[in-house]
Amino acid sequence: MQVAILAHEKFPGRAKTAVGILRYADYEVEAVLDRDRPGERVSDYLSDVQDAPIVAGMDDVSDVDALVIGIAPIGGGFDDSWRNDVRTALSRGCDVISGLHYFLEDDEEFSRLAEENDCDIWDVRKPHDDLTVSQGVANGVDAEIVLTVGTDCSVGKMTVTLELLETAKERGINAGFIPTGQTGIMIDGWGNPIDRVVSDFTAGAVEEMILERGDDYDYLFVEGQGSIVHPAYSAVTCGILHGSMADKLVLCHEAGKEVIHGYESFSLPSIEEYVSLYENLARPVQEAEIVAGALNTSGIEDGESARKAVESYERELGKPANDLVRFDADDVLEAIL
Amino acid sequence: MQVAILAHEKFPGRAKTAVGILRYADYEVEAVLDRDRPGERVSDYLSDVQDAPIVAGMDDVSDVDALVIGIAPIGGGFDDSWRNDVRTALSRGCDVISGLHYFLEDDEEFSRLAEENDCDIWDVRKPHDDLTVSQGVANGVDAEIVLTVGTDCSVGKMTVTLELLETAKERGINAGFIPTGQTGIMIDGWGNPIDRVVSDFTAGAVEEMILERGDDYDYLFVEGQGSIVHPAYSAVTCGILHGSMADKLVLCHEAGKEVIHGYESFSLPSIEEYVSLYENLARPVQEAEIVAGALNTSGIEDGESARKAVESYERELGKPANDLVRFDADDVLEAIL
Repeated sequence: MQVAILAHEKFPGRAKTAVGILRYADYEVEAVLDRDRPGERVSDYLSDVQDAPIVAGMDDVSDVDALVIGIAPIGGGFDDSWRNDVRTALSRGCDVISGLHYFLEDDEEFSRLAEENDCDIWDVRKPHDDLTVSQGVANGVDAEIVLTVGTDCSVGKMTVTLELLETAKERGINAGFIPTGQTGIMIDGWGNPIDRVVSDFTAGAVEEMILERGDDYDYLFVEGQGSIVHPAYSAVTCGILHGSMADKLVLCHEAGKEVIHGYESFSLPSIEEYVSLYENLARPVQEAEIVAGALNTSGIEDGESARKAVESYERELGKPANDLVRFDADDVLEAIL
Repeated sequence: MQVAILAHEKFPGRAKTAVGILRYADYEVEAVLDRDRPGERVSDYLSDVQDAPIVAGMDDVSDVDALVIGIAPIGGGFDDSWRNDVRTALSRGCDVISGLHYFLEDDEEFSRLAEENDCDIWDVRKPHDDLTVSQGVANGVDAEIVLTVGTDCSVGKMTVTLELLETAKERGINAGFIPTGQTGIMIDGWGNPIDRVVSDFTAGAVEEMILERGDDYDYLFVEGQGSIVHPAYSAVTCGILHGSMADKLVLCHEAGKEVIHGYESFSLPSIEEYVSLYENLARPVQEAEIVAGALNTSGIEDGESARKAVESYERELGKPANDLVRFDADDVLEAIL
């Protein structure tokens, strides 16, 4: 599938979804829309992802199958300065994929245009209607379940999950992905947006995905969300932990992080405490072990210091650890298999 | 406010909401609707709640302000055999209060009748639109926050919360209630249905209530939900624990219970493990201590055995405990103050 990605004024630093798609999705990205840098290219900024031209708007994009909204303002609303691009896409019969909290299919103009031009709006963050409570049976599937858990939000759980998935596949392992957030769902083209489901169905929405895919793979890599000590998002983390009935956990952390992002009065517990919390909370539902760690060292410039940070994290954790993007994913994958 | 309570074929044993309202709400209950036992009275079954006649249907009820749906079938659907009673109520201009998952205001006939007769349908389980994520500030209110937590669902957390509230008030303590489930919300006439909010807003929906009431009271008693080890509902429990930022916890348990209700392959951890799990999980957000226990002995017939069960629970817990309905709430309240 050929797509264009909307990332106005935010590419690449504040366009996590756009970058995730460029790096991990099977889509052919024909163009990135950023009105601040037309004429440049993705490769001017990022070396380890597919390249594409950057253009000012949808008028400069040739035929594609879908326009993907690749950024999200705080609050998840729709920025009306994007309206013309979405309008142009739909008028041409091009699908639109969005992970915003604001559902584009509830927008009168967009839904009319989609109908007139026989194309689809896919609001990735809209949970489907048949979700229900967990039955507590995810451990019955054939696959071994591996879940990424974190010390905070935005420490790289999705990235680690996808790096492990790719590395496993490269080794010929029959591995599948369970996305739980909007970027993961866009990358995979499938999945339940766990942070948007009814709270009673949090575990159930994860279980449903595992039951659907669990017998087709030997390993399932489940994208974690939030952190079990997050003042706002711990409920989602807890629901994923128990709903997935994971066998093995990978603890994701960001080098140097000491407080919860956006909640700076809350200090992070020690790594040892995280290990106890996750393992002890998992146990009554399904015994799970933190078998490895993933450290995000993107805030550290020189490679030597990054390497030392990884070694220090490894010592704290008492398990193999690495930065799976900067260095490699083999050690961590070995610890899982 | 004068109300009638619909409890067809289920009063009193399987009509938890109806009994909760009879016992704790300030409503004057004019009648209970149960087509299986017209002509009987509430007092034929229950001695410790307000009395009312039992009638076959709404036609036998004189003017009331509201009809309350006091039962919920598995799945929370609307039983069409109740339609005539709801229709009769709305036609008379009488409000209807429902905690069903099926929203009565989305029923075409009911919404038309409500409009024609200028009365309201209150779907207690429909969250309001302005909910958002927690800011992690519930501990800033003046009140001490006391939360009931459980070893499982349906062990009596709401009842214990309301018994503590009433006992505190009787002693002249300025105590308030934070309801989190449909029966609690009906009793109080206010509150967010935590199990129905968007999962990302679980903690935020609790925090919002505490911020609204927390400076008006010296103690706030927060109704807990589920259990931190429940395969399906732990997300809700975790969100309430962190969102409420409780100072003190009361661990509610049912005598003799060994497995999760409806999930019989899951054994309950030891009481000691529950204490560690709740306290350790609370700590990174807000230090909380389990200061007392509440044991539901309703399954034990003779008082002597019930007393022994309480003593045994007290030993396991290492804190004061009691059955707050069967015996009294004073010891547990003392441990909180």
